[in-house]
Amino acid sequence: MPAAGPRCPGGRRRLPVLRWLPSYSLAWLQLDVMAGLTVGLTVVPQALAYAEVAGLPLQYGLYSSFMGCFVYCFLGTAKDVTLGPTAIMSLLVSSYAFHEPVYAVLLTFLCGCIQLAMGLLHLGFLLDFISCPVIKGFTSAASITISFNQVKNLLGLQGIPRQFFLQVYETLWRIGETRVGDAVLGLTCLAVLAGLRAMKNSLPQASRGEPLAARVSYLIVWTSATARNALVVLFAGLVAYSFQVMGSQPLTLTGSIPRGLPAFRPPRFSMDVPNGTIPFRSMVEDMGVGLAVVPLMGLLETVAIAKAFASQNDYRIDPNQELLALGFANVLGSFVSSYPITGSFGRTAVNAQSGVCTPAGGLVTGALVLLSLAYLTSLFYYIPKAALAAVIISAVVPMFDAGIFRTLWRVKRLDLVPLCVTFLLCFWEVQYGIVSGVLVSGILLLYSIARPPIKVSEGDVLLVQLGSNLHFPAMECLRDAICSHALAASPPRSVILDCCHISSIDYTVVVGLEELLQELGKHGLSLAFCSLQDPVLQVLLAADLEGFQHFPSREEAERWGGAEPGGSGAVPFTSTGESSLLPTGLIQ
Amino acid sequence: MPAAGPRCPGGRRRLPVLRWLPSYSLAWLQLDVMAGLTVGLTVVPQALAYAEVAGLPLQYGLYSSFMGCFVYCFLGTAKDVTLGPTAIMSLLVSSYAFHEPVYAVLLTFLCGCIQLAMGLLHLGFLLDFISCPVIKGFTSAASITISFNQVKNLLGLQGIPRQFFLQVYETLWRIGETRVGDAVLGLTCLAVLAGLRAMKNSLPQASRGEPLAARVSYLIVWTSATARNALVVLFAGLVAYSFQVMGSQPLTLTGSIPRGLPAFRPPRFSMDVPNGTIPFRSMVEDMGVGLAVVPLMGLLETVAIAKAFASQNDYRIDPNQELLALGFANVLGSFVSSYPITGSFGRTAVNAQSGVCTPAGGLVTGALVLLSLAYLTSLFYYIPKAALAAVIISAVVPMFDAGIFRTLWRVKRLDLVPLCVTFLLCFWEVQYGIVSGVLVSGILLLYSIARPPIKVSEGDVLLVQLGSNLHFPAMECLRDAICSHALAASPPRSVILDCCHISSIDYTVVVGLEELLQELGKHGLSLAFCSLQDPVLQVLLAADLEGFQHFPSREEAERWGGAEPGGSGAVPFTSTGESSLLPTGLIQ
Repeated sequence: MPAAGPRCPGGRRRLPVLRWLPSYSLAWLQLDVMAGLTVGLTVVPQALAYAEVAGLPLQYGLYSSFMGCFVYCFLGTAKDVTLGPTAIMSLLVSSYAFHEPVYAVLLTFLCGCIQLAMGLLHLGFLLDFISCPVIKGFTSAASITISFNQVKNLLGLQGIPRQFFLQVYETLWRIGETRVGDAVLGLTCLAVLAGLRAMKNSLPQASRGEPLAARVSYLIVWTSATARNALVVLFAGLVAYSFQVMGSQPLTLTGSIPRGLPAFRPPRFSMDVPNGTIPFRSMVEDMGVGLAVVPLMGLLETVAIAKAFASQNDYRIDPNQELLALGFANVLGSFVSSYPITGSFGRTAVNAQSGVCTPAGGLVTGALVLLSLAYLTSLFYYIPKAALAAVIISAVVPMFDAGIFRTLWRVKRLDLVPLCVTFLLCFWEVQYGIVSGVLVSGILLLYSIARPPIKVSEGDVLLVQLGSNLHFPAMECLRDAICSHALAASPPRSVILDCCHISSIDYTVVVGLEELLQELGKHGLSLAFCSLQDPVLQVLLAADLEGFQHFPSREEAERWGGAEPGGSGAVPFTSTGESSLLPTGLIQ
Repeated sequence: MPAAGPRCPGGRRRLPVLRWLPSYSLAWLQLDVMAGLTVGLTVVPQALAYAEVAGLPLQYGLYSSFMGCFVYCFLGTAKDVTLGPTAIMSLLVSSYAFHEPVYAVLLTFLCGCIQLAMGLLHLGFLLDFISCPVIKGFTSAASITISFNQVKNLLGLQGIPRQFFLQVYETLWRIGETRVGDAVLGLTCLAVLAGLRAMKNSLPQASRGEPLAARVSYLIVWTSATARNALVVLFAGLVAYSFQVMGSQPLTLTGSIPRGLPAFRPPRFSMDVPNGTIPFRSMVEDMGVGLAVVPLMGLLETVAIAKAFASQNDYRIDPNQELLALGFANVLGSFVSSYPITGSFGRTAVNAQSGVCTPAGGLVTGALVLLSLAYLTSLFYYIPKAALAAVIISAVVPMFDAGIFRTLWRVKRLDLVPLCVTFLLCFWEVQYGIVSGVLVSGILLLYSIARPPIKVSEGDVLLVQLGSNLHFPAMECLRDAICSHALAASPPRSVILDCCHISSIDYTVVVGLEELLQELGKHGLSLAFCSLQDPVLQVLLAADLEGFQHFPSREEAERWGGAEPGGSGAVPFTSTGESSLLPTGLIQ
């Protein structure tokens, strides 16, 4: 796929398919079909499993798995990315959709609209405010929550509540009710998946020079490791079917899944309940912050994955176009009863490793999902729940990163605060965790802006240096520091303010500096500025402060400071201050 | 009053009365009593008028006017400040207390508790995030809203709604119903007040050398100008009383005010209504953001006024102690049916000009208010509403600052955005105006942090300089800028990142830099850092990034950059990068 330059003409920019379709070749087709099939074999069992995480009937996992592939093929800018249901998104959906398909589908529609609006308004930069510790805290907590959520299926326990703490308590309390068949099968699947995963990671690269036998065995190992989810589910289904034929069933099965494709119709904007109808407005209120968290997390996953693979495979993506693609995929998805989808790291990696050349691979994946829905749902009856649980657990466990706590302790301890806040609160409610984490890292950020490092060098003239930029919340602090140092000493001293690190100032800072000039002036002291950057100097000159004087460098300011009473030192640029900016204040 | 050092012992710090009481003298007493009386003559008519603004029965203005004086005498750190009802606070109370005394008193209690909690937690720094344009926008809008709110009383119109836009519409529509008596009296009072105010401002300083007659006439003019509110109200009351005696009454009168002091009892935590009781929880929900806006604006006014007069009269205040004093005044005030109070600029100025020496002047003011409540309420019956309206209008009109728009246009145009947002939305609802203004200035602040100025100098080696500090929201932007410049050129170039303006970095930045090092490394390019400040260098060394190299100065980095292929240039400090920080990402 050719690199997408930032300045391609409008049509090709908005419809990236036009960039690669004209040069599409048979060799690409071959690789795309192979990759699409491999991803399809991964997505079908994952879709069923993630629908379980989302608390929805299992067919909704499949309903969510094809539209994203089709839409991304036309609108996506990264060849490797595949959109579809993911563990994180499923966890979020289980919080915000209350296990009601009508809510989930409406959430998809609204989430898509919000993502489209964000894309059109170029709001992708909002992602920058989700810091790394928050993401790590969330994914680590989600990995634990989702894994533990599946322990009940792995052990065949029934009627376990969904709230995490109750779940842990009930699962441990009722561990004696474990069904042996489920547990044995589940743990076996888990072990096989872990083994295949480890095998794949340690697989040496096959080279063309090796004998045929070696290359064939390499291909077999590679394929079985890559399609391990499908293989494990197939194997477990066969076991369950054999038991069924023999007349005894020690396993908990998935049960019947409605056959056929979902109807193409707009999402429902109200929901019928036994005693009336829940109107659109109440549904939106019920979803609450979910309407911010779901679109943002969806976007975050997609962009993060697209960037990671773009960097690995040397092409560039357009984050805003990704946002539009994801928004369209969700809006159209809501017409086929999809729940919110996003980029999947695991399947994108499978796609890349299978050597996909263009997003056309998604067409094959989507078709495979549609075929499964049309013809295979009756076979899904026999899939044991424990096998799906094993698929999920082996997918989410690597998301847990215990090392991050040690790393942050070593590198930047303050960042442990947003990490721990997010991590711990995510166990309570996912949205509280993420929102609090973002707020905490925002507060730390604002605090560091409001309290910049101020270095005061004592001397005949006080030399004050700001360690960073000067924004309005820091003005009071600077003013207090200068006043207390300049006026506390006996005799009081004039001040040189070294502004070399200040790249812009706002009106509040200008007013604060004017008040400072006046306060020092009342004691016969002066305040000189040095090393002003051009934009700052222009603002200060426009403000026409009384007694404003500045020097190009600190050395000249110091020469002036040392010679001040005499007057033979450097000559400052001064201002007469004809107009005053001082606010009249809150007069009563 | 002696200056309050920042390190006085605990007791004197928490109970500032102990600082000045031991050295109290008769000369001080004389001046304090005079000042207290003058402020008292101002506060009584203002209290009645502001209660009207707050939409409460007029006696609540007086109930709110004495506790603050008493409490501040013991806990305040500024000799000039007087606490009591103010125009701004009354406007806020009218929005949040729904013209219900029970709500207003509960709001006082909660507001006091929040201010106390903020004082104990040292949260006074939150004020720093209310920028100057927001304050100006709010006070200018409040000045218009409050003035227009009084036009109906000035003209004697009845049954005008309180919502600003409806009020303007109805007032203009029904201007024909103006009562001549009210209008004539009101406009006369307004003219007299404006005249006395102008006279006072142009009054030359009396000097001891002048003849007695000149000094006496100066004193008369000064007193009548300072106590102008009381004089005008007294004069208007006499006019009204004369009409009453003559049997015809062309004026709208205040009407009867319950006599006597308020009972000392805790505020009510629920409210009885015709069809039941409003519980505490519902009342709190009704007040909503008022519980944040009222304490913060109260604090803002008090601290701003205290700082202004401390600077004028050369003493220092302790903002946290001011917060505690204000909190106590409100909590105790709620026991005597006060509505929320704060520092009053106008009366503080009167206090200062009357030569007050210690906060003891407040005791006299408070006593005068108590005496009025005990004995004068029957006389208040005759005060014409138009006269009170004139008192309010002449107090709030100077708060409007038309020049701010021009000044901001000249000095910093971007700051017009929060100003206009606050100004315009305050007409709709005060809280929307303030909250939106704070949010808008916060967003502008965060945006400037997320998009720092990046200067790229082309050459054999790319020299990238950040104009300001590097916080996590800016990392993606920096990474994109470096990648697009370094990799887009042919051949790709190594990069020197000049970090002289960076005073601290967080973990997200570290991860971003590591990814950048890897991405450039994959193309055989290097990224060298120069001019690292010590804290930044320590974090980067602790992170142990692979391929990390740094130089003390830009010149050395450039020497290295120029000589890179050969290797005879400066030798960088490098790191082996034994451990990796890279997040495993959102694996599915």
